[in-house]
Amino acid sequence: MEFVVSAPGKVILHGEHSVVYGKKAIASSLSLRTTVKIRALEENIISLDFSDLNIKESVGSGDLTILESQVSGSLQEPCLPNESVRNSLKCLELQNTNVECLLKQQTIFTTASLFCSLRKISGRKQGVELVGMSDLPIGAGLGSSASFSSCLAAGFLTLFDFIQTPECSENGSNKRIWSKLDLELINKWAFFGEKIIHGNPSGVDNSVATFGGAIHFQRGEITPLQCIPKLNILLINTKMPRSTKKLVGLVKERKEKNPEIYEPILQSMDEITNAVMKAYDQICENCDDVTMSKAYSDLENLIDVNQHLLQALGVSHPTLDDICLTCSTVGFHAKLTGAGGGGCAYCVIRPDVSEEAIESLKRELRTRNFECWECTLGGPGVALTSP
Amino acid sequence: MEFVVSAPGKVILHGEHSVVYGKKAIASSLSLRTTVKIRALEENIISLDFSDLNIKESVGSGDLTILESQVSGSLQEPCLPNESVRNSLKCLELQNTNVECLLKQQTIFTTASLFCSLRKISGRKQGVELVGMSDLPIGAGLGSSASFSSCLAAGFLTLFDFIQTPECSENGSNKRIWSKLDLELINKWAFFGEKIIHGNPSGVDNSVATFGGAIHFQRGEITPLQCIPKLNILLINTKMPRSTKKLVGLVKERKEKNPEIYEPILQSMDEITNAVMKAYDQICENCDDVTMSKAYSDLENLIDVNQHLLQALGVSHPTLDDICLTCSTVGFHAKLTGAGGGGCAYCVIRPDVSEEAIESLKRELRTRNFECWECTLGGPGVALTSP
Repeated sequence: MEFVVSAPGKVILHGEHSVVYGKKAIASSLSLRTTVKIRALEENIISLDFSDLNIKESVGSGDLTILESQVSGSLQEPCLPNESVRNSLKCLELQNTNVECLLKQQTIFTTASLFCSLRKISGRKQGVELVGMSDLPIGAGLGSSASFSSCLAAGFLTLFDFIQTPECSENGSNKRIWSKLDLELINKWAFFGEKIIHGNPSGVDNSVATFGGAIHFQRGEITPLQCIPKLNILLINTKMPRSTKKLVGLVKERKEKNPEIYEPILQSMDEITNAVMKAYDQICENCDDVTMSKAYSDLENLIDVNQHLLQALGVSHPTLDDICLTCSTVGFHAKLTGAGGGGCAYCVIRPDVSEEAIESLKRELRTRNFECWECTLGGPGVALTSP
Repeated sequence: MEFVVSAPGKVILHGEHSVVYGKKAIASSLSLRTTVKIRALEENIISLDFSDLNIKESVGSGDLTILESQVSGSLQEPCLPNESVRNSLKCLELQNTNVECLLKQQTIFTTASLFCSLRKISGRKQGVELVGMSDLPIGAGLGSSASFSSCLAAGFLTLFDFIQTPECSENGSNKRIWSKLDLELINKWAFFGEKIIHGNPSGVDNSVATFGGAIHFQRGEITPLQCIPKLNILLINTKMPRSTKKLVGLVKERKEKNPEIYEPILQSMDEITNAVMKAYDQICENCDDVTMSKAYSDLENLIDVNQHLLQALGVSHPTLDDICLTCSTVGFHAKLTGAGGGGCAYCVIRPDVSEEAIESLKRELRTRNFECWECTLGGPGVALTSP
């Protein structure tokens, strides 16, 4: 049995940081995806080949047996493995403790935990070979880990026949989507994977990776957006590592010191999210050129205002400011996405912008040593992909 | 009779734009001043020599007679001349209608109106020779016209013996300050001058030019700040002309369209002004180095947040963004001052900053074609100055 699963990354469009204080945020799937080829093996091992993470490892039968003895839970209620089991696993004996090695370790542990949990429930004995690759930069706030978890969840649930192989593809695409019920189960297990990797994830990343489209989320509640404009964006990576925890802490500290200054800013951000959803609705309606152009202008202005308020919170970064300035100089509108302090920014691309203008902007950004990708928002979630 | 009068320019420190919506703003006098040398003439003319405005004109006895017949009012209640009188004055027959010429015309008309109004009340006949010069850039939002009006008011009131020549100078300075009562009369006539020039001025500029120090103002009410830290700032001129009216209109339009987004921003600006006044208080207390340094850090952060909120309102300008970025790159904190969209920015200079660091910043800004001046805030208002 061999098949390929893919799942999208996500981008937070508006509401980062204010979401921590109970305000609305919007996120969408990206056309950048993680792909995992899955092949059943007779042998009791997991063979991993994730070139983006520099992982080419095998988890041997000894480790799998130990891990399987430690995991519990049912199909509908996955249960986290005891952290102490890590110390007894051979596959996690890495010499180094730098960030790259810790990420490798985390990925191997997550993969093996997901696999062993589902295999134990299935009562089967087979092994698996995984070959993964991703369009997404790692650790840049674009949900690369959730897209990976969602692929693993869908892959293992398919492998052990817990979900039905989807039959037909949607409108001639090479992606076959599972039923809503199956997607909910995949999401549960993708969230389980995220928990192993991140400790206390919001559930946003795995939801977007699994269901695709766009969502808004507020106080832990995730709601799909009814209308998802197929916006084109340019995603720009500062390549500057940042710590979400540190940035969230910085805003908390500022807000505690001067609530009267920062609470109105967060309030304004919430209203920006509302106004953005209205602009999306208008763009979705696909009305006449004039109305459409006005909706894009509104959206661009809201992007600018949001970026300035994020700067006011202190979560921008000179590289992000540079990106926004570079974009604005040639008529584009950009904001940071995610925690800020580095990471990524995006700029919205109007449908009537010439390919030449986009290429010229990309060249300018690359000259400044930023990575960039043109992508579309709101595409499908996890899918069985024809090779 | 010959004497020299000088008056300071002003800088809005915080609260520009939000003040239009009933929030607090703070302004301070600048160490940049306008100076006018005044000499009584036997002849019934006004001789003007204002090199900064390219004015070297005489208002002849014919014009003075016409103007004097049209002005009315008393010492305590100046009364604006009828606008139609302009058409009959020879001295305003300028060929050109460009901005420079209109400004010349306005200045000559204001000077002659102030002079004729006070001369009529005094019942005297003498003429006057005025030689003026200013440290202040014209039309950059630094209150150059109010400092000029204040000089004229103090000068003419002295010339016609309506106020007492102040006797002693304050702590050895070369500036002799009038009594509070006399300053109030000067301010009334400086405001009168501002009305002729601007139509509907707020009264802030002439108050600062006349009384010096720092004030906060809200809904038309001007209150002197009890504590005025002698802050050093670098004032930076973009040399980009802007229209206050257009920028105020832009904010109004945005606020009317999305009050829920912009009202909280204005609210936050009001709270920034409050927090800034607290930081000023701490700096005034002249406490230990650690507390002082903390107060400056607070102030710098408030400057940054204020600037980002002004950007969010849409009133910044690429040149202003460039100035703020240039300053922040070398550890200084700058914001626009006044209406924005060009005009000036200021950056605060901590007392412990090396002369070298300031010089290097100035060089960098001048390379980018900006003008800059180091100045001190909170100095004296209009004064009789020893040559």
